[in-house]
Amino acid sequence: IAHDKVVYHGHAVAAVAAASLALAEEAAQLIRVDYEILPHVLDARAAMRADAPILHDDLRTDELGRKMDGLTNVAAHARTQRGDVEAGFAQAHVLVEREFVTQTVHQGYIEPHVATAAWGANGHLQIWSSTQGSHAAREQLAALLHLSLAQITVVPMEIGGGFGGKNDVYLEPLAALLSRKSGGRPVKIIMSRADVLSGSGPGSGSYIRVKMGADSQGRITAAQAYMAYEAGGFPGSWVNNGAGAMLAAYKLDNVQIDGYDVVVNKPKAAAYRAPGAPNAVFAVESVVDEVAEKLGLDPLDFRLLNGAQEGDRRHNGLTHTHMGYLQTVAAAKQHPHYLAPLGGPHRGRGVASVYWNNWGGRSSVSAALNADGTVNLVIGSVDLSTSRHAVAMQLAETLGIPFTDVTVTVGASDSVGFNDTTGGSRTTFATGMAAYELGKKLQARMAQVAADFWEADAQEVRIDGDVYTHDTQSPHNTHANERLTFREIAKLVGDGGVPIMAEASVHPQQPGGASAVHIADVEVDPETGKVAILRYTIIQDVGTAVYPDYVEGQMQGGATQGIGWALNEEYCYDEAGHLLNAGLLDYRMPTALDLPMIDTQILEIAYPGHPFGVRGVGETPIIPPAGALANAIYHATGVRMAELPMSPARLFKAMTAQGA
Amino acid sequence: IAHDKVVYHGHAVAAVAAASLALAEEAAQLIRVDYEILPHVLDARAAMRADAPILHDDLRTDELGRKMDGLTNVAAHARTQRGDVEAGFAQAHVLVEREFVTQTVHQGYIEPHVATAAWGANGHLQIWSSTQGSHAAREQLAALLHLSLAQITVVPMEIGGGFGGKNDVYLEPLAALLSRKSGGRPVKIIMSRADVLSGSGPGSGSYIRVKMGADSQGRITAAQAYMAYEAGGFPGSWVNNGAGAMLAAYKLDNVQIDGYDVVVNKPKAAAYRAPGAPNAVFAVESVVDEVAEKLGLDPLDFRLLNGAQEGDRRHNGLTHTHMGYLQTVAAAKQHPHYLAPLGGPHRGRGVASVYWNNWGGRSSVSAALNADGTVNLVIGSVDLSTSRHAVAMQLAETLGIPFTDVTVTVGASDSVGFNDTTGGSRTTFATGMAAYELGKKLQARMAQVAADFWEADAQEVRIDGDVYTHDTQSPHNTHANERLTFREIAKLVGDGGVPIMAEASVHPQQPGGASAVHIADVEVDPETGKVAILRYTIIQDVGTAVYPDYVEGQMQGGATQGIGWALNEEYCYDEAGHLLNAGLLDYRMPTALDLPMIDTQILEIAYPGHPFGVRGVGETPIIPPAGALANAIYHATGVRMAELPMSPARLFKAMTAQGA
Repeated sequence: IAHDKVVYHGHAVAAVAAASLALAEEAAQLIRVDYEILPHVLDARAAMRADAPILHDDLRTDELGRKMDGLTNVAAHARTQRGDVEAGFAQAHVLVEREFVTQTVHQGYIEPHVATAAWGANGHLQIWSSTQGSHAAREQLAALLHLSLAQITVVPMEIGGGFGGKNDVYLEPLAALLSRKSGGRPVKIIMSRADVLSGSGPGSGSYIRVKMGADSQGRITAAQAYMAYEAGGFPGSWVNNGAGAMLAAYKLDNVQIDGYDVVVNKPKAAAYRAPGAPNAVFAVESVVDEVAEKLGLDPLDFRLLNGAQEGDRRHNGLTHTHMGYLQTVAAAKQHPHYLAPLGGPHRGRGVASVYWNNWGGRSSVSAALNADGTVNLVIGSVDLSTSRHAVAMQLAETLGIPFTDVTVTVGASDSVGFNDTTGGSRTTFATGMAAYELGKKLQARMAQVAADFWEADAQEVRIDGDVYTHDTQSPHNTHANERLTFREIAKLVGDGGVPIMAEASVHPQQPGGASAVHIADVEVDPETGKVAILRYTIIQDVGTAVYPDYVEGQMQGGATQGIGWALNEEYCYDEAGHLLNAGLLDYRMPTALDLPMIDTQILEIAYPGHPFGVRGVGETPIIPPAGALANAIYHATGVRMAELPMSPARLFKAMTAQGA
Repeated sequence: IAHDKVVYHGHAVAAVAAASLALAEEAAQLIRVDYEILPHVLDARAAMRADAPILHDDLRTDELGRKMDGLTNVAAHARTQRGDVEAGFAQAHVLVEREFVTQTVHQGYIEPHVATAAWGANGHLQIWSSTQGSHAAREQLAALLHLSLAQITVVPMEIGGGFGGKNDVYLEPLAALLSRKSGGRPVKIIMSRADVLSGSGPGSGSYIRVKMGADSQGRITAAQAYMAYEAGGFPGSWVNNGAGAMLAAYKLDNVQIDGYDVVVNKPKAAAYRAPGAPNAVFAVESVVDEVAEKLGLDPLDFRLLNGAQEGDRRHNGLTHTHMGYLQTVAAAKQHPHYLAPLGGPHRGRGVASVYWNNWGGRSSVSAALNADGTVNLVIGSVDLSTSRHAVAMQLAETLGIPFTDVTVTVGASDSVGFNDTTGGSRTTFATGMAAYELGKKLQARMAQVAADFWEADAQEVRIDGDVYTHDTQSPHNTHANERLTFREIAKLVGDGGVPIMAEASVHPQQPGGASAVHIADVEVDPETGKVAILRYTIIQDVGTAVYPDYVEGQMQGGATQGIGWALNEEYCYDEAGHLLNAGLLDYRMPTALDLPMIDTQILEIAYPGHPFGVRGVGETPIIPPAGALANAIYHATGVRMAELPMSPARLFKAMTAQGA
């Protein structure tokens, strides 16, 4: 599987299929691989040095983005800028420049990767997979296996967590080829936990430098960032995504961001919930906290002063759509949590904020009307977080029928129109928008049936919720003012009419972004450096909260992952480049015992670009925790942590170094 | 399961679920049932006598169709008539009246009934079943289990034969209830072959009387029929369907048909390919042969004289749609088989014909366009005979793309619009019609994409096969006369456009009927009464033959079942009402060794009511064999057989009685 060179510990080499797991393991033992040990490099900065071991023979970009004759480990460099940062810095009254390091982290989904393939005698390949997107998986398989899209069916199974890590196929093409080799027999592959951690795609480790200046009034005069993201063994980190998010909350006239995608001898990075953003925003929000402190400003006041709003230009020159950042910061400032005393020594409060753009993407849905007035909805979006219900609710709302009358199924790749993966906080937004469009089409069909029944024009049918009224001026029509409910019309259709289906696809270009402020109270044990989170509060503008309980669950789940990233989680390697902690005992995610109840305040600032005002929820809450906790730790200890995770050992060492 | 009274041998009493089959069988043995033996009755005529054992306490129709005070076994009586049969008989030069008896027969599908149910904790019931119609199964389950239609998903599995016998649910509701009782665990039930024969729904045994008169010119002056069909243990034979078919091939001014639905102590009858027709047409075609003989007319000439055509009135007063009966008879008359000498003693040639109306029904399809120009089609019709491909071919033809670019899936009940069962020869006709409608919608969407690309109006796009041309008169449009293929437009859509789906549902009210003449040459062994079929030829108007190989397969398969019905198949009961031959060794279906190659002549008389001229194939070929073989046996032996099956014992007995 690896071509010539194994570029990371965990890089797959060969695949074996057998009638039993034991037999397969025995057969795999018989494969001999003679490895020649090559030098390796594990972090971005080291990989960018001139003397670094080189991973590939086709990368020639240097650390300044120049094309070189010799080989490098820089796969890509992108600069985005507006205004003149040097001029901005020259106007600054306060200037802070800091560098930050973050480690490789994993999404930590509980269900490992699993794929089953059956390559039929008719040349049709069927895949059962816990993928985040059946169409994306199908596209990847078609490209890898040289098949047409119609020759592959991907059936998305219920998924036990993905967080971006199941956007890409790992096992699917191997299972497919093994199935073909074994005469079309179904082949199933499951990753062990160690496989998941060492062989799937974690979030990038990174090196980030942020420089920010502000004038004496507290207005940011310029901001500049340098980001080097570890792509892992092959090009493709989410550095540009991080660049897009890191300063998006702020109105900036002078800004420059340089992003580098750097290969290192670690697993190829994948998307991880708000990919690229948590580390970038950790850096920015730490610097913002320091700038505000130096100015003697309340950190939320600083954000109120500098926060972006609709119509402001972004770092890339595009214009912000309708956004609730300033309202979110204002709400945080009035939140009881922000106003309460800390009540003890070694305690600190930190805040961090974010504006996250979300993704629109393409969504397709179809539905069939049943004779009893219930509706079967098929969606193309894999359901990571009960989003199927949030979509069905939007259809029910559009039709004015009870939610319980809508049954929703996540369709296979060949039973619904093209649908982008579930990710980018897009499903309730975009697939819900498609459900609305679908509902409108269905409603028009129902109105036509009612009109036919009344021997009237469809324009004469007035729709109010699930009631269709014959709203005619003609005194001659004997059906004037008659009413039919949705259910009664369904029965008319069922009693010998032409069955009714409808479909809708959307591709919204302007998703609604979400804004959040996180407030963290911590107590740091001066003896060990252990951080206890006393209280944690999220204030987030989600647009309309379609299913508030799950919105809250998303906020809490995202923050929990962000807290793990901030305080504990990291890939640990030995000197030889071996991953040391490929298991959930040693790769330390937060448990319920580590966390307080995470409080939430849901702000419903409706997004005008969505029929129900939805923005999207899921990614935003993972972004601010590291910044909020770093700032809280600083206010508790006087130590500004510049490296994640802020584990007891790392924090204790920093406290000791600063004599805190 | 049986309420108080077990009304036939094979009637289910109780169901047991266990973790293993052995355990379930052991548990079932522990169920004690104390039976009180009641008198029974096994055939329609006996069940209609005044002293017959009565099965139910709510049937009060007598043998003349009158409502009685006392209980009877007649569930329903229906009379259809036109003109005045007595006046017609009075004008007759030749008058033949005969009575016929046929036995209970089974569809003989090779796959037994099987159903798996999982009743989820969320109240949703999922069923995997080899049903002929996922929506029909869902409706039956919803009614039986008091669920909404949206609470049930029926996934139609690949089916190993149905022929009408898998229109109804047997195991599904039991599996569902057992699943619910066992806390939602999946429960699977498979019938044994004995269960299938004794507990599912066979085709009705019947008693039929036909009287026909013709004038000296050979024109039928009147026809009258009396039909008593065995419904089995509960009301509901297909007697009315038989009544609709039996005389449909003939232009009749005076006609009367009385049909009786009679309960007897046999399994409840179900649909069996052209349900109700083979026995009815056997009777009619035997009488027609005798009438023609008495008139000294060639039997096909007699049919050419009396055959119906478009616009003629049917027995029920409705008007025939476009039909190819006369052309089919004319083709048979010129067929080499009809003209060839018989070439030996004890041989005879018989013909029989039929006009079968087919069914329209409701069909729904949906499709999604892929970025590479392939199309995923979902159909609601269960595929009994590669009809999925016959449907996909119609979509490909509509779009002008290769058939191999269309992948077709049979959807579950909740992933496609309402769809009637696969039966009535309707799928290639009606679901194909839906595929055509779908193709037209898809084509319009593609034209719109092309128009947008050219900044033109959709009306300016000319479509020719898979090529879309910008057919504009404006000299200013820089895209004038540009062309895009279907595939190129798909790529435009895939490259960031709004995904394209389409759906279509149809409910054609006027299906295209099929006409057929069968010609059989037999040799009868005078020592044993065994009939050897020397040659067998089907001439059938199928309308357009979408997939000719499978059309021929349908014709051959249907005829084989008709031949089995004619010569061998019957339910045998002992004196106590026990079914004696519930196995395929004793229930004797024809094997390849029993039959010659069945020759076919496909007549493609396009049906104008279908976009491609399709009529439907599947049921028609089972109807004429019994009549053709009875007539052939008569011409070989001089004995007119009035009872099916014409097994060696029965034929030998009849030959002996007539001194043949």
